[in-house]
Amino acid sequence: MFRPQVVGVTGRTDLGRAVRVAERVCRLCDREGFEVLVDDSLGIGEYPRVNLKDMGKEVDMIITIGGDGTILRVSRITSEYEVPILGVNLGKFGFLTEVSESGLKEAVSRLARGDFNLEEHRKLRIKIGGSDEGDALNEVTVITSRPAKMIRYRLSIDGFELETTWADGVLVATPTGSTAYSLSAGGPIVEPQVECSIITPLNPFKLEARPMVVSMDRRVEIDVDDPERAEVVVDGQEYMNLDGTVSVTRSPNVARFIRFGSTYFERLKEKFLRWD
Amino acid sequence: MFRPQVVGVTGRTDLGRAVRVAERVCRLCDREGFEVLVDDSLGIGEYPRVNLKDMGKEVDMIITIGGDGTILRVSRITSEYEVPILGVNLGKFGFLTEVSESGLKEAVSRLARGDFNLEEHRKLRIKIGGSDEGDALNEVTVITSRPAKMIRYRLSIDGFELETTWADGVLVATPTGSTAYSLSAGGPIVEPQVECSIITPLNPFKLEARPMVVSMDRRVEIDVDDPERAEVVVDGQEYMNLDGTVSVTRSPNVARFIRFGSTYFERLKEKFLRWD
Amino acid sequence: MFRPQVVGVTGRTDLGRAVRVAERVCRLCDREGFEVLVDDSLGIGEYPRVNLKDMGKEVDMIITIGGDGTILRVSRITSEYEVPILGVNLGKFGFLTEVSESGLKEAVSRLARGDFNLEEHRKLRIKIGGSDEGDALNEVTVITSRPAKMIRYRLSIDGFELETTWADGVLVATPTGSTAYSLSAGGPIVEPQVECSIITPLNPFKLEARPMVVSMDRRVEIDVDDPERAEVVVDGQEYMNLDGTVSVTRSPNVARFIRFGSTYFERLKEKFLRWD
Amino acid sequence: MFRPQVVGVTGRTDLGRAVRVAERVCRLCDREGFEVLVDDSLGIGEYPRVNLKDMGKEVDMIITIGGDGTILRVSRITSEYEVPILGVNLGKFGFLTEVSESGLKEAVSRLARGDFNLEEHRKLRIKIGGSDEGDALNEVTVITSRPAKMIRYRLSIDGFELETTWADGVLVATPTGSTAYSLSAGGPIVEPQVECSIITPLNPFKLEARPMVVSMDRRVEIDVDDPERAEVVVDGQEYMNLDGTVSVTRSPNVARFIRFGSTYFERLKEKFLRWD
Repeated sequence: MFRPQVVGVTGRTDLGRAVRVAERVCRLCDREGFEVLVDDSLGIGEYPRVNLKDMGKEVDMIITIGGDGTILRVSRITSEYEVPILGVNLGKFGFLTEVSESGLKEAVSRLARGDFNLEEHRKLRIKIGGSDEGDALNEVTVITSRPAKMIRYRLSIDGFELETTWADGVLVATPTGSTAYSLSAGGPIVEPQVECSIITPLNPFKLEARPMVVSMDRRVEIDVDDPERAEVVVDGQEYMNLDGTVSVTRSPNVARFIRFGSTYFERLKEKFLRWD
Repeated sequence: MFRPQVVGVTGRTDLGRAVRVAERVCRLCDREGFEVLVDDSLGIGEYPRVNLKDMGKEVDMIITIGGDGTILRVSRITSEYEVPILGVNLGKFGFLTEVSESGLKEAVSRLARGDFNLEEHRKLRIKIGGSDEGDALNEVTVITSRPAKMIRYRLSIDGFELETTWADGVLVATPTGSTAYSLSAGGPIVEPQVECSIITPLNPFKLEARPMVVSMDRRVEIDVDDPERAEVVVDGQEYMNLDGTVSVTRSPNVARFIRFGSTYFERLKEKFLRWD
Repeated sequence: MFRPQVVGVTGRTDLGRAVRVAERVCRLCDREGFEVLVDDSLGIGEYPRVNLKDMGKEVDMIITIGGDGTILRVSRITSEYEVPILGVNLGKFGFLTEVSESGLKEAVSRLARGDFNLEEHRKLRIKIGGSDEGDALNEVTVITSRPAKMIRYRLSIDGFELETTWADGVLVATPTGSTAYSLSAGGPIVEPQVECSIITPLNPFKLEARPMVVSMDRRVEIDVDDPERAEVVVDGQEYMNLDGTVSVTRSPNVARFIRFGSTYFERLKEKFLRWD
Repeated sequence: MFRPQVVGVTGRTDLGRAVRVAERVCRLCDREGFEVLVDDSLGIGEYPRVNLKDMGKEVDMIITIGGDGTILRVSRITSEYEVPILGVNLGKFGFLTEVSESGLKEAVSRLARGDFNLEEHRKLRIKIGGSDEGDALNEVTVITSRPAKMIRYRLSIDGFELETTWADGVLVATPTGSTAYSLSAGGPIVEPQVECSIITPLNPFKLEARPMVVSMDRRVEIDVDDPERAEVVVDGQEYMNLDGTVSVTRSPNVARFIRFGSTYFERLKEKFLRWD
């Protein structure tokens, strides 16, 4: 059974409240006997500090203070270590997070007792022009740099040219990302247990365009006619130039989330679905 | 390698043309050295006849004359035998079929040489009120019996009640069925290699309703408030009473289709997607 | 200013509660000095009775007890008289209704004081095979008689053949009907002040199909390849055979609703839209 | 009857082909007896030149060489003069344009004979923070400046706050614009004869969000939480800062297009709809 010893603590640095909650999390973990390492950008003085880039290899699990965006950022930076993440939610929505501020004490105590389970979410590996650009937990978006100006992209599956489309862009999402940007763009809700890539066009000027779900074993490739007019966005956070073909395949890495009993469908019902 | 010896021939009995093509198929197969068994409802006299229900256990493969509907019907009746099917297309659309009338001679010759490959499509197993109702290759639809009068259904996943919805109905499709009724109802295109169940509401009076993709390992259950006001339709062909909960799970059976080199994405591009 | 003298009372006859509320409405109207006429199918003995078909020409306004369905039925039967309707809502949804049971006393008192306003909703005139079939307040639906079996329809605008589509059917809605079946089928929300016809396909097997909004001055016509396989449904209530072309034009009649200050956008916000 | 005497000629200056076609148009008009004024940015020497900004008040009609984008630009610059426009299409799509290069001679000859009709398209008047920003023929888009980063907007109708939505943005389109960006974003097709404003959210992170059609008599207002994170785009061409509330109302101006018999529904069928 997985029993973490060393806990990393990180969070949003632009919110005073996040820093205060991080301090409280450190104390709670300390009291429960965990060794605590703090993200040095948080500026918390009492505990050993570490750069977030190195946190993945130093700790057994990470507690993130913020929301889904914080989890996405941390998961991307520490992707290769697959360190389990417990997301503390400071905001309203929070579909990936598991606890709110009021549940912190109980949560840390359950961590110490090993009273939790791990949920795995497969990631996508991104390459741009042949160069490895790490993993996406939610989605890779190829999008016009100039809002409201269409680009024309070509979509290939395992080297087969499937179609070209004029659109704002296109995204390739994981099931985890199916309830994020892909959902806004008309994509289906896909549970994380189904390992697949969801290809969702963004405002396509083409009436036949539809979201498409392919195996993660496929190599999904996107080319843009004028690459300098488009950019690549990973997990809604990191922006890159479109220097060649964007290639998306199954990553060897998964994200791991600590859950205290909540299931995917329970969270889906609570956050998205209305009981009519 | 799979080399069929005994070929079953069936097709639409309501089209004179289908019967004539079936006769031609019989002769072509005969000449190539196959043993031929004909569906007795076709009324073709020269070859040994068999009831379609028994064809599955008597033959190594089946040639269907008609369109996708014919394939769906034959696949359902012979489901447990998983006999490879070659679909001859007499109509316009034909996404599951592989050859047209003009390609018949070449096709039978390739069958004889073993020059083809098999494509597998996982099916869904249906139960209504606990009673086994066979397999669906495309979808199971729970729908109002009275067109334009809504029903209210409850959707459960592995026993967890996820939501209720007022709608014309709801369908649970395989990836194979994702380009049929589910697509009309707004569901995503899903390639058959992704084993999953696609849950697509039919004209839901609920703005949050979205198509949902879950693992085929899930037990998807649908209950209707007034079951006598709804019915169950399998593969758009067979109508059943809604005598209790409709339960949909992975079937142990697959459909097998004979392909002469065409791939799923090639057929998708040809039939559905426009090159812009 | 419009001051009603004679009030007709009608409602659902299949709900005991509706009949009791109708009795209470009669007494309240009586006390406020209105002359009261009761729908004879309600079986209320103390007041003069009238057949609903004749109510329109005998009364100055009608109070309906039930929900939107009751209003649709009454509005259709009394269409040519354009009698103002006050809808009492017994159910949950009620977008056309204006008061609930608890607001009845106040409502009747305001009727007596003339303290209300009238909201007009343009209707559509239906013809089938040239024969006049009255008005629709919400929509006319041409739909397959056999659930889940597609029909093929041809859509013409002012005699110009615009397109053919395989689908479950198609509906032509008023703006009033834009928040009913048309919305479920993917149509836009249209405020009643915009006089137009909304053409919404039902589960079209055609990726280009989109909802379309045309002027009510247009003659929208729908033909079906096999008319005996389809039927016509008016306002989700009345079923008719498809004996020829269905023609839909602006009706000379409007529905009139009594409102106590609520506006369309207030009701829309309350019933459909979430404040995020 | 409208008989133009003075013809303005303008077009894309970034395409050599457009300039050559413009020269040919000038000669054809000259020969047919029209007085010709050329947009000075085209650099054509033989005819009197005028700045496009002043062309509207100097000419009776304008011939544009390019595509729909060229028409949109010219119509916006000359909006107050409502000069009839004949669009010459150099590209592929062209829904507003009327003739291609090969039809030029015949077209100019028909202009000279008065053998054409005028089609009017109502525009929307835009204000940002109270300041008049001219007219839109297609749409006004309020959109995130940072692609793939949502903004939160508040939508008001005649001062009534209807809803807030997290999204890429939102657009308000004319019926003319209903087949442009609004269609890509899921809006309905609306024929120009229906005077209305179409409000279409762009990738809303809100499952209830739907396109909405309101009377052009309404004042549609859009506010954004962080205006510096958004921008305003008019007709997909002109970018402005979001300095306050964006207000959209009916413009007093219409665009006028010269048509040689083609109707809206004929063009719609040819460009968008498939005959199934």
